[in-house]
Amino acid sequence: MSSPADFRSWAQARQSRTESTLQGVLPAPEIAPQRLHQAMRYAVLGGGKRVRPLLAFAAGEFAQADPGRVAIAGAAVELIHAYSLVHDDLPCMDDDVLRRGRPTCHVEYDEATALLVGDALHSLAFQLIAEYRLADDTTTQLEMVKLLAAAAGSRGMTGGQAIDLDAVGQTLSVAELEYMHIHKTGALIRAAALLGARCGNRLSEKELAQLDYFAKYVGLAFQIVDDVLDAEASTATLGKTAGKDAQQNKPTYVSALGVVRSKAFAEELRHNALKALDGFGERALRLRQLADFIVLRKF
Amino acid sequence: MSSPADFRSWAQARQSRTESTLQGVLPAPEIAPQRLHQAMRYAVLGGGKRVRPLLAFAAGEFAQADPGRVAIAGAAVELIHAYSLVHDDLPCMDDDVLRRGRPTCHVEYDEATALLVGDALHSLAFQLIAEYRLADDTTTQLEMVKLLAAAAGSRGMTGGQAIDLDAVGQTLSVAELEYMHIHKTGALIRAAALLGARCGNRLSEKELAQLDYFAKYVGLAFQIVDDVLDAEASTATLGKTAGKDAQQNKPTYVSALGVVRSKAFAEELRHNALKALDGFGERALRLRQLADFIVLRKF
Repeated sequence: MSSPADFRSWAQARQSRTESTLQGVLPAPEIAPQRLHQAMRYAVLGGGKRVRPLLAFAAGEFAQADPGRVAIAGAAVELIHAYSLVHDDLPCMDDDVLRRGRPTCHVEYDEATALLVGDALHSLAFQLIAEYRLADDTTTQLEMVKLLAAAAGSRGMTGGQAIDLDAVGQTLSVAELEYMHIHKTGALIRAAALLGARCGNRLSEKELAQLDYFAKYVGLAFQIVDDVLDAEASTATLGKTAGKDAQQNKPTYVSALGVVRSKAFAEELRHNALKALDGFGERALRLRQLADFIVLRKF
Repeated sequence: MSSPADFRSWAQARQSRTESTLQGVLPAPEIAPQRLHQAMRYAVLGGGKRVRPLLAFAAGEFAQADPGRVAIAGAAVELIHAYSLVHDDLPCMDDDVLRRGRPTCHVEYDEATALLVGDALHSLAFQLIAEYRLADDTTTQLEMVKLLAAAAGSRGMTGGQAIDLDAVGQTLSVAELEYMHIHKTGALIRAAALLGARCGNRLSEKELAQLDYFAKYVGLAFQIVDDVLDAEASTATLGKTAGKDAQQNKPTYVSALGVVRSKAFAEELRHNALKALDGFGERALRLRQLADFIVLRKF
């Protein structure tokens, strides 16, 4: 067994690697169009927990993947996540002014630039997956493009955002909330785990299914914890505007279940996530630790 | 030599095929999230000249490609084009209410939905290129993903839009206009030609370079003709708001050169485009006819 301190240093090393990978793949600020490239870097660098890349690294270790490959795959997923945040914060969506403790992209630059920043990050994510060698065979790599595109698209993350839009002012059942979040945040979190694993040794169908279950539970737990934090924490702690969900009349786990039962539900999902990894031994150590980190939000 | 009537029927058959391909690859309107899927279909289907898919088909014939493959590659490029139009029409960008003779997506639906429509079409384009078999080897197909991502991204189309934003109210030289348009419209037009060709027999470096020159000249000529039409034609003829450029104080070829010299420049570019195809004989017939069609805008 490893200590919390060991996980902390593992995670910090991989967060740093993610940061330097993103630094390297984002166009330099002095390359034209400069303002767009500066705004892209502003939106992506210097913040964020990098949960998706960490999940890619943990899944990569599960499949004995080369960390250099996983760094690129994780960066691609993080670019998709970052683009979705920039678009989500726009006035026509959540209209938020604070993200990662700083003004949102459209506040720091302008709305049109923020729109283009999101679009450019979106394209860049696919360029990375196609440009770098991430798997031994190009067939696997093409599957990775497809996996990321499906996770990001109208039956994945973007679809979840559309469901979220329609849900404002509605009362959703727990099942409906789950359906929304499996798309909105779950799809990309699952993609992060699967892409990390695809960088390594070929897993059996059963192993992939177990990893996917794990990621599905973790993704949902992540969202519930997010809802609880939005209701409980302060803006300073979150680095984004707290209490937005209630203010915007958005259905959340907290509004459906209350804080206490939401926390219990997250704990149950964490338990299910760990159970999905049963029998994997040391290979799945980092995945297990990540599940704890994501639900308990403690290093 | 073939007649204009022969080209007309060639183009119409491929426009129909593009339409039915797009019909098939877009999520059905009854699949959840329904409103998003309906809006995606609204934004893509039933309009547009499909110039980029036609170029893909013509380049596909140049490389003896399977038309079924080219139809998918052309549809992917058209999805990127459609997403860019939906985002371009948003209030924070060009704030346009009319497109292809109908209300723009954000007018017919709402701004948030239009934003997500663009994002979902963007992802779908990459999903197509990764999901269908478009080349004999997956290495080539991965190169196609990279080519499309680079053409769409911050050093391609989206970068061109950013340059366009910065140019509002400025006086640009013809060289600066060219730089803007080579990115804004040129990058995707070149990608259409190159992707169509990649679906077929492997071309020599020289052939690819000639095809790329051709597409570069045609893409620029296309933009100049667009500027002239915006200045000269009526809203009814265009299907989009005419006179927007002057109204928004955008630098155009017409503002830089006047109508007469703009037309002469487009004609010169058409000449250069045809010259790039010298020596290719019948293989390049449709490419030549397309250059005429794009510049002269006559069937």
